[in-house]
Amino acid sequence: MRMRRCAAAVLFLVAASALADEGMWPLDSVPVKAIQKQHGFAPTAEWLKHVQLSAVRFGGASASFASADGLVFTNHHVGRGAIQKLSSAQRDLMKTGFYAATREQELRCHDLELNVLVEIEDVTDRINAAVKSGMSPAEAFEARRSAMSTVEKESHDRTGLRSDVVTLYHGALYHLYRYKKYTDVRLVFAPEHEVAFFGGDVDNFEYPRYCLDVSFFRVYENDKPIKSEHYLRWSRSGCQEGELVFVAGHPGRTERLLTAAHLEFIRDRTTVEGLNRLRRKEVALRTFAERSKENARRAAGDIFGVQNSRKALLGRLAALQGPGLLAEKRRREETLRAAVAKDARLRGECASAWDAVAGAVREWARLYDELEILEHAAGFNCRQFGIARDLVRLADETAKPNDRRLREYRESNLDSHKRHLFSEAPIYKDLETVKLADGLSLLAETFGADHELVRRALAGKSPPQRAAELIHGTKMEDAAGRRRLADGGKDAIAKSDDPMIALARLVDEPSRAVRTRYEEQVDEPLRQAYAKIARAQFAIHGTDVYPDATGTLRLAYGTTQGYQEQGRAIPHCTELGGVFDRCAEHENQWPFRLPDSWPARRDKLRSAAAFNFVSTADITGGNSGSPVVNRKGECVGIIFDGNLQALGWSYQFDSRQGRSVSVHVQAILEALRTVYGAKALVKEIVAGSRQSAP
Amino acid sequence: MRMRRCAAAVLFLVAASALADEGMWPLDSVPVKAIQKQHGFAPTAEWLKHVQLSAVRFGGASASFASADGLVFTNHHVGRGAIQKLSSAQRDLMKTGFYAATREQELRCHDLELNVLVEIEDVTDRINAAVKSGMSPAEAFEARRSAMSTVEKESHDRTGLRSDVVTLYHGALYHLYRYKKYTDVRLVFAPEHEVAFFGGDVDNFEYPRYCLDVSFFRVYENDKPIKSEHYLRWSRSGCQEGELVFVAGHPGRTERLLTAAHLEFIRDRTTVEGLNRLRRKEVALRTFAERSKENARRAAGDIFGVQNSRKALLGRLAALQGPGLLAEKRRREETLRAAVAKDARLRGECASAWDAVAGAVREWARLYDELEILEHAAGFNCRQFGIARDLVRLADETAKPNDRRLREYRESNLDSHKRHLFSEAPIYKDLETVKLADGLSLLAETFGADHELVRRALAGKSPPQRAAELIHGTKMEDAAGRRRLADGGKDAIAKSDDPMIALARLVDEPSRAVRTRYEEQVDEPLRQAYAKIARAQFAIHGTDVYPDATGTLRLAYGTTQGYQEQGRAIPHCTELGGVFDRCAEHENQWPFRLPDSWPARRDKLRSAAAFNFVSTADITGGNSGSPVVNRKGECVGIIFDGNLQALGWSYQFDSRQGRSVSVHVQAILEALRTVYGAKALVKEIVAGSRQSAP
Repeated sequence: MRMRRCAAAVLFLVAASALADEGMWPLDSVPVKAIQKQHGFAPTAEWLKHVQLSAVRFGGASASFASADGLVFTNHHVGRGAIQKLSSAQRDLMKTGFYAATREQELRCHDLELNVLVEIEDVTDRINAAVKSGMSPAEAFEARRSAMSTVEKESHDRTGLRSDVVTLYHGALYHLYRYKKYTDVRLVFAPEHEVAFFGGDVDNFEYPRYCLDVSFFRVYENDKPIKSEHYLRWSRSGCQEGELVFVAGHPGRTERLLTAAHLEFIRDRTTVEGLNRLRRKEVALRTFAERSKENARRAAGDIFGVQNSRKALLGRLAALQGPGLLAEKRRREETLRAAVAKDARLRGECASAWDAVAGAVREWARLYDELEILEHAAGFNCRQFGIARDLVRLADETAKPNDRRLREYRESNLDSHKRHLFSEAPIYKDLETVKLADGLSLLAETFGADHELVRRALAGKSPPQRAAELIHGTKMEDAAGRRRLADGGKDAIAKSDDPMIALARLVDEPSRAVRTRYEEQVDEPLRQAYAKIARAQFAIHGTDVYPDATGTLRLAYGTTQGYQEQGRAIPHCTELGGVFDRCAEHENQWPFRLPDSWPARRDKLRSAAAFNFVSTADITGGNSGSPVVNRKGECVGIIFDGNLQALGWSYQFDSRQGRSVSVHVQAILEALRTVYGAKALVKEIVAGSRQSAP
Repeated sequence: MRMRRCAAAVLFLVAASALADEGMWPLDSVPVKAIQKQHGFAPTAEWLKHVQLSAVRFGGASASFASADGLVFTNHHVGRGAIQKLSSAQRDLMKTGFYAATREQELRCHDLELNVLVEIEDVTDRINAAVKSGMSPAEAFEARRSAMSTVEKESHDRTGLRSDVVTLYHGALYHLYRYKKYTDVRLVFAPEHEVAFFGGDVDNFEYPRYCLDVSFFRVYENDKPIKSEHYLRWSRSGCQEGELVFVAGHPGRTERLLTAAHLEFIRDRTTVEGLNRLRRKEVALRTFAERSKENARRAAGDIFGVQNSRKALLGRLAALQGPGLLAEKRRREETLRAAVAKDARLRGECASAWDAVAGAVREWARLYDELEILEHAAGFNCRQFGIARDLVRLADETAKPNDRRLREYRESNLDSHKRHLFSEAPIYKDLETVKLADGLSLLAETFGADHELVRRALAGKSPPQRAAELIHGTKMEDAAGRRRLADGGKDAIAKSDDPMIALARLVDEPSRAVRTRYEEQVDEPLRQAYAKIARAQFAIHGTDVYPDATGTLRLAYGTTQGYQEQGRAIPHCTELGGVFDRCAEHENQWPFRLPDSWPARRDKLRSAAAFNFVSTADITGGNSGSPVVNRKGECVGIIFDGNLQALGWSYQFDSRQGRSVSVHVQAILEALRTVYGAKALVKEIVAGSRQSAP
């Protein structure tokens, strides 16, 4: 299979010192023989298909079916967006937790869409055929985008399945992924936030841990739970130390195949400035949250997201700033380039690729500020601006033929896109004002207060004054109004006197301009160059290897094992009882406060039950909620984090100390049973279906 | 008097729309006639002398004598450094508060130095005479520094008083300030931090307020309380609405006389990057603090400082980014320059000054990163680095003649300098590691991870690893060891194998180099140019005006009055009882939690007593702790803050909404009496001395 062949080429770059158990493998290219050799177990095609069809993409993260009746389980922190949108000052499900003992009590979520990967098809030849030699990067980008939209639309029209073309190896391969899509998703169970995220930002990305980071949903179609043919049965005992485990999930993004010059840019620019933007958001959000309990509730989701990213980026920056990683990347790159230089054919075809990457990255550096501030909207950070711009663009783009549109407005994606745009989830003016004030200040700081766009955006006010004016005046929070505007098309947008629509119109031209420059002068040259680098690697080395993560379904594997840290042995697993000790150490103060339900049932809880555990399975952000599966295909746990040492895995895998962290099924079942009295849910999980529950 | 004449010149620049009550006046040039005209009261020379000698400089802030027995009172947040240094995990005076009912119980502070301004002498001619025409900026800077050190040393040798040459109007005048210095200062009373800083960062710089932001100290000499001839008697009733009040304190820094180009640099560079540095510190410190109660205690002082500065800078940035302020500055500047251009003599003498400022600021922009990272040590942010560098420089500098040394090592200042260096106040390795890790990352981010100095500073580690290694290895926390190193001179420094000393030695050469460039190419040209601008203003306009704040004693005046905000009338004063309501609104949660002492005595408290009040007196940071004085020279309150609208006062005074915020004497006396049972202290304040207390 073509992908495996080409994939193999990239091994050289990613081969770190600790190769054991490395890799996030597309489900159609799992290295079965290597696993067999290393662990004495080879997953069969049926085993793989069953796991694939049991796995669920949940927003930007992961989940899996847990019964034949559409029961889905994921992390609490993955479900938290949905849970928070169902909450209000009067009904705060984040604080109280939630359990629907009967189907009637299940709460329909606002705008969730779950996907199950059904099929993968290699469309590399078709996409590349659209790009003729001699085309300028601008023409090539346009031709490629057009081909991708056309392939997706054809597939969608033919199969009715959500169809996405995925770029692998940064441009070497193009695969078409077809998904079954579910949009009626209902909340079944969530523990209290305090125990789901026990330890808060302090313990986040750290280990040992004590988190019940789980939540349960149910998928409906036609107002009835679906019959989920494939689901993961839960192991009664979970996993033991040293056991082989698999992780099936949707890792979002790794950068292990990038050139050294590209990584330097990631280190010196995107990470550093990304952190600065996160820190300013964190400070602004926390000062807002501290004003009242209701403020804190409203800002909690944003704060979690920002702190989570900040801690992850800090770890990655430290890995990139340490001397080892980039030196090793450079050394390997020099060896490969020397080999290419010795081969006449390869030299002609590929030798220029590294300089091409460096050139594209230099162009990126020139565009970077404008791209972040305008197109990524860092200068207009609030929900209402995002909505307004989306409405402006929706009108412009849907008036064009499908293959000429911006990617996000292509026909095959339009339903999903509109589901978000027209969501009735609450938007809080006070919270968004604080975010926008900070964004507008960033705009003025970056371009200078005397820049024409800045002056027009601020309209004679200071950033906080202008933010207050815009948010006070806009009606973008009204979902029905949004629908009316969208239905009215370009004409309605042109006539709108909503100040946020006016701002979005003002920003759209320069924003599209920088996006186009990025697409033509950065994205397309990178795709072409990385395709060449992959070819060179394939020619010179030649073993199987996995592509960088792209948010698509992957299988990782490893063993449950502890590690050594500063002379201490860190155990592979913690016990339920430990959470009470840690809570007591911190005098039950946030973020180590337990909800009342836990101490109340402490005597009844089996304190020796396994709570959280670590393994060497290769994961990254997006894997949250991935089922951890044993040889028998049973679920033994659920990924919810990596430790600090795994943050460098974005660039290089290393299992000496790096670990993925999971909630153990023992703890989940014990808590559901003993703390929450969730008998029906436990029965459904144990029996594998609701109807047949004993 | 020369200064008054010249000072007058600058009025034009600072004359905002709301001139009433504007100004922070040096004590030798208070505009008595203007006050008389406006308020019907003229302070006499005796009145002014009494207030001057009752006022105390307390660290970088303000205080005043409150009895004939050396009793000094200031804000709790001004005394907090001293209070925190006297605290430990076992004895947390920030949490519990403190009261010494007898003199024996008073606690000696670690490294406090209080100053009382005794005399002011104009030394402009002598300083300027040292700078000969035709000197290069480097020569001029050196000559000026040498003259200042010599003047100071002569004065110190002759009078025994601390003697500082102060630059006024950014270079137009030089005054010698002589201070009586006190170094044995003992803690008498501090309330609990929770009520001193009630409302925390949320209410900081906001109003209405409810803070008992006061603390009391006593000054000793020869192990006995001093006899303080001048002290402020406290008014029994405090002040009423609309009353004329004076504020005597030490405003740190305003920038009202700067040119537009200079202000643009402040807006676009120093404020923006200062905020980014503050935010990263805030995030790092808070994540440290959240790990445990003891961590929170250790980091509290740093967190307060960082949050306070962050909120102040955010307000100032908004003021600068708003369209009005800079447009007005530019308009006035153009008018003045046009007038200069019309006068042949002035044109020759002064016309080039604005371009000279702009040129110096451009050079500053080029040096800015290096200056902040190296000389201001943002790249090495921890106490131990500061100490190590100080030891390295102390050895180098004291080996030179006095008039060739860096300013901070001049003979007249050396005792004060060493008091800080050899302080036995606790230093926490864990806290400093977190700060240094962030600093080293900033170093790598700013110069690039491949920069030679960065590579040598990191020594093959990532920033967090290197920070841990340096702090683990250094012995800079040991005050006795510091003394031994200092006594050993250059030889001991050269032989030291302390890793922080080694780092300080590594950084010292490039750091001195950028400081020298700044002094010669920015500081000196700015002094010369601003002297010319002041001359032009004097020639063309010609009324009395005050110099920008410089941390020296100033008198401000205004009236107690409320204001309008978003259609609401904000009262001039709050009542004691209000604090219980605000606490209840927030369910007694930090930062609105009251210490147990308050609810316990609620029934006994006179809830209608005035708590905090606002006035139009012109203040800025450094005025914290300033006594608020009535016509009779009695203390009616103590400044502890400005409101948000007063943050723009750094650049332009405006009393439409801007207010200074004070604690009212009624609240202080009521709380001391009723909540704290501090009978002896109340008696001493009321009687004006301890011995004669009834």
